[in-house]
Amino acid sequence: MNTFLLASSSPRRSEFLKQCHYQFFTQPSNVEETFDPTWENDTIVKELARRKAASVAANHPNAVVLGADTIVVHNGKHLGKPANVAEAKTMLMALSNSTHTVYTGVAILHGNKEHVFSDAAKVTFDELTPERLERYLQSGDSLDKAGAYGIQSFGAIFVSRIEGDFYTVAGLPLSKTAKALEKFHIYPNIG
Amino acid sequence: MNTFLLASSSPRRSEFLKQCHYQFFTQPSNVEETFDPTWENDTIVKELARRKAASVAANHPNAVVLGADTIVVHNGKHLGKPANVAEAKTMLMALSNSTHTVYTGVAILHGNKEHVFSDAAKVTFDELTPERLERYLQSGDSLDKAGAYGIQSFGAIFVSRIEGDFYTVAGLPLSKTAKALEKFHIYPNIG
Repeated sequence: MNTFLLASSSPRRSEFLKQCHYQFFTQPSNVEETFDPTWENDTIVKELARRKAASVAANHPNAVVLGADTIVVHNGKHLGKPANVAEAKTMLMALSNSTHTVYTGVAILHGNKEHVFSDAAKVTFDELTPERLERYLQSGDSLDKAGAYGIQSFGAIFVSRIEGDFYTVAGLPLSKTAKALEKFHIYPNIG
Repeated sequence: MNTFLLASSSPRRSEFLKQCHYQFFTQPSNVEETFDPTWENDTIVKELARRKAASVAANHPNAVVLGADTIVVHNGKHLGKPANVAEAKTMLMALSNSTHTVYTGVAILHGNKEHVFSDAAKVTFDELTPERLERYLQSGDSLDKAGAYGIQSFGAIFVSRIEGDFYTVAGLPLSKTAKALEKFHIYPNIG
């Protein structure tokens, strides 16, 4: 079996691959996360995922390398990771009582072979009362996450409904990723 | 603040309440999980959730007690926890490449006050190839879960799409539960 590298420092992505019994190493990439504002949302996440994977693959030509990127889009506006609590508050107040879309791109590279795809899911937020918002901001869950919330952590209490793959919202579309990894002969490793 | 008891032995439900910073004790209930087959699906999960909470509340009259119950319904048929690997295999093959519905009921009791609700979510499975199915069965993830899969664990790779609350599928609708707990003055406890 080829060495499988996750080109991401996200503890969530690593956790999701582990829960599906993949054996891998983590090698965070260091790439420019800028993009052309005229690009479509799915192009942005696919291109950034590809860049992340490529930057790690350059040093590990024999490994299968997976990169991923997630953006949150609300009313046509991109919400990245908040710089501070005030920015997190502004983002969460915007998301309150409405629906936004999360795009995640995945790129898997191995030598000359590449498979790049994206997936999107809709997320509907409940109304965030001032008390709920304050407690959430206090918890510190906002700061390292696009859109300022974690659906797989405390942010779960805000989300009344999703349409699509939960793991796309959380940062790695597991069912599509598992199928794509099969093309590279990477399988869950049981027992 | 009143003592908050989770009337469930499910490690998932306990984990979900913890990720939302609730402080609680776990007190598994021991009730008959039989029901009248003429009941509607939402009636079944609400009634079983109420029974579980009531059996614990009887011994803890001053506590706020939460009970929950989850059923998986596919083509009008109820799928419970599989008795063995063969039954798990039959269930998963039935779910392959189709959509089913998961109902979770929640009952919160405190003295004479009660709040009981249910939530439903649709889950669409990918095609389960024989290899995927065998690996999953080998992992042992099937056996303690209604419908023979865990969406929050290795079963994630089967699920291409959900419509509704992910946590309803996983066993506890967190956003509705958080709002219901507020009526009993139970809040996440930060820091």
